[in-house]
Amino acid sequence: MKNCIIGQSGGPTVAINASLAGVLSKCKEYNCAHIYGMINGIKGLLDNTILDLNNIFKNEEDIDRLKKSPAMYLGSCRYKLPTPNTDSGIYNAIFDKFKELEITDFFYIGGNDSMDTVDKLSKYANKIGSKIHFIGIPKTIDNDLAATDHTPGFGSAAKYVAGSMLEIAFDSSIYKLKSITIVEIMGRNAGWLTAASALAKTNFSSAPDLIYLPEVPFDKNKFLNDIQKLFKKKHSIIIAVSEGIKTKDGHYLDQDCKSTNKDAFGHIIHSGTGKILEQLVMQKFNCKVRSIELNVLQRCAMHMASKTDIEEAFEIGQQAVISAKNGESAIMMIFKRISNKPYLTEIQSENIENIANAERGIPIDWINEDHNGIKKELYNYMLPLIQGEVELKYKNGIPSYINISHLNHSEI
Amino acid sequence: MKNCIIGQSGGPTVAINASLAGVLSKCKEYNCAHIYGMINGIKGLLDNTILDLNNIFKNEEDIDRLKKSPAMYLGSCRYKLPTPNTDSGIYNAIFDKFKELEITDFFYIGGNDSMDTVDKLSKYANKIGSKIHFIGIPKTIDNDLAATDHTPGFGSAAKYVAGSMLEIAFDSSIYKLKSITIVEIMGRNAGWLTAASALAKTNFSSAPDLIYLPEVPFDKNKFLNDIQKLFKKKHSIIIAVSEGIKTKDGHYLDQDCKSTNKDAFGHIIHSGTGKILEQLVMQKFNCKVRSIELNVLQRCAMHMASKTDIEEAFEIGQQAVISAKNGESAIMMIFKRISNKPYLTEIQSENIENIANAERGIPIDWINEDHNGIKKELYNYMLPLIQGEVELKYKNGIPSYINISHLNHSEI
Repeated sequence: MKNCIIGQSGGPTVAINASLAGVLSKCKEYNCAHIYGMINGIKGLLDNTILDLNNIFKNEEDIDRLKKSPAMYLGSCRYKLPTPNTDSGIYNAIFDKFKELEITDFFYIGGNDSMDTVDKLSKYANKIGSKIHFIGIPKTIDNDLAATDHTPGFGSAAKYVAGSMLEIAFDSSIYKLKSITIVEIMGRNAGWLTAASALAKTNFSSAPDLIYLPEVPFDKNKFLNDIQKLFKKKHSIIIAVSEGIKTKDGHYLDQDCKSTNKDAFGHIIHSGTGKILEQLVMQKFNCKVRSIELNVLQRCAMHMASKTDIEEAFEIGQQAVISAKNGESAIMMIFKRISNKPYLTEIQSENIENIANAERGIPIDWINEDHNGIKKELYNYMLPLIQGEVELKYKNGIPSYINISHLNHSEI
Repeated sequence: MKNCIIGQSGGPTVAINASLAGVLSKCKEYNCAHIYGMINGIKGLLDNTILDLNNIFKNEEDIDRLKKSPAMYLGSCRYKLPTPNTDSGIYNAIFDKFKELEITDFFYIGGNDSMDTVDKLSKYANKIGSKIHFIGIPKTIDNDLAATDHTPGFGSAAKYVAGSMLEIAFDSSIYKLKSITIVEIMGRNAGWLTAASALAKTNFSSAPDLIYLPEVPFDKNKFLNDIQKLFKKKHSIIIAVSEGIKTKDGHYLDQDCKSTNKDAFGHIIHSGTGKILEQLVMQKFNCKVRSIELNVLQRCAMHMASKTDIEEAFEIGQQAVISAKNGESAIMMIFKRISNKPYLTEIQSENIENIANAERGIPIDWINEDHNGIKKELYNYMLPLIQGEVELKYKNGIPSYINISHLNHSEI
């Protein structure tokens, strides 16, 4: 290993900087001459906005602060590489830059779309006989990457969702009146994070009473019936709903109610499922109704991170470097679960081709027969991932996170 | 002191149970025979839903768990007592119940409307020659109670708002593109909590870049100009806005856009200011726009409470009992600030008449001349209130709060 280059891509999580910290610490241990960081993913390489992280992170304290800071120190991009056949100009530019910087190892931390980038770069490298190692490091709060048992970032988001759900249950309990609280949780096609709200259940609190996931069809009449039935037993009903729930013909619930904005990858940008259900139940039930969108905090609330998640994210970053040193390439690092109780995992690697662009939803047999809750198997799968709290340093009453002033590009 | 009775009323905070814990601990110290808790405020007295807290909270560990649990162990009500002249039937019922339970001291923890209840009960007691002591204990995330330097619950909500704002700033920083993020914060007529978002500012993060408060008139054109000017300096703009901002003729921004639902006290229930501004800036600026409603988590997120706030809430509860024992009545407990640095306060009492139904907004000279930010004086006032973190116990990855199953009234 001589010079490494690292990027982050896709949406933020609170664990993605921990993986960067893991890569950094191992590269330092291996005495890499330069550890470059691309600002705003692969776009930063093309735009020549590159930091030398070796100079910025001088000691363990610096790396520890990075490990415990949310979002993305290197920024992100939503840039999809063309297929090498259609535009090799960009590939030439990228590999020229690699040559100029004498890069031996390339690490990319991200989700499905980022693994697509690693896949394409690996294939192009193969074609031109480049010896650079390309390693993908998973992250996504959605937990929807194929091949890996789970993804860094999910456990912390799950802990935030579960903890917040419990607090919302407390908030909703105070009045002696019929009420419906709808909590909208992120998840475009995979319901893992919405399902994680079930981790809020205690021996005295049943919230969320109903859970609706994108993996099974959503039926409005059944939904209203579910609520009606529950009102016979209790007065305050709390519902967790994924932003991406769909009717049985595959229509997102909010699809007809808004302009169909798309992101750079052609994904429809959703919002408003909670509000739509709020209107629906208001018409049907004469009671207090509130919808709550957990919004971006579920992916950036480092103050409620899972220690298990942050430590795993750090370790998978370190293992990525070890794999590169061992000569591996065109892989993504993955977790294999050995057992739930005690919780044991191993970090391995998987051919990137088997992962890129494949989405992994919740297995249908982990969802209950009524399609409004989860089974014990899913609960047991998620429970170990939210264990432990991260000790943060505070300054002036707020968490003391890493300086990200380099991301404030005033020139735009 | 023989038998005490305690109630909680109004909206939840994370500090209101700490005040209840304070009252409890001091009543136990004074060997009160019975410490009754009214479920759902004064309504619980009329409905005869009363717990004997002395039996439930047996030791310090029980009281500590109560102190560190969000929302309201005793539940709440939004019930306004009639003036004694118009309906003394209810007052007869209340004071008959006091007699039956041999109550010597009455404690009520709440905001403006709850202090109205304490005021009316004190006056009625005076009229009929009752010797019961009536003591109000303040709480509200809005920080809008008259006479007291600040209110328990505000500091924790402020810490959550500031911490979340910092994390939202991290989340918004990742893309290299023009963006506007609007964060809607609770506050009907007082902007204290919205102003608290300014505590998120660090030496590298300027968020929130703009702050709009209900104490000064809101002007759409000026608002759009403020953003336009800022875009010359930076690409990601974060705006904190109070739900209750009004135009110069006193119209709430969201007033024309929704049905004017009112709560039991005739207050208009607001929502949607952030969404309205989102639409406004989308029309004007060709960039990414997102609005975030912090929603109920700002008042129930015990996991991000201020230690200063929780300790003060506990102490003011204890002091209320001491005042009652000293024969005081028709008072609310208040904080007097001695100094900011070091932060020193004293707990005193104030005639309830001077407090009930009076609202305290931010002094205009603590708001900047451009009406889009706050002055250093306000920052310095708020800073001590968010200091310190509360050590919570966790179980199964989520906070281990107190059992509130008694609030799940299945009979409704």
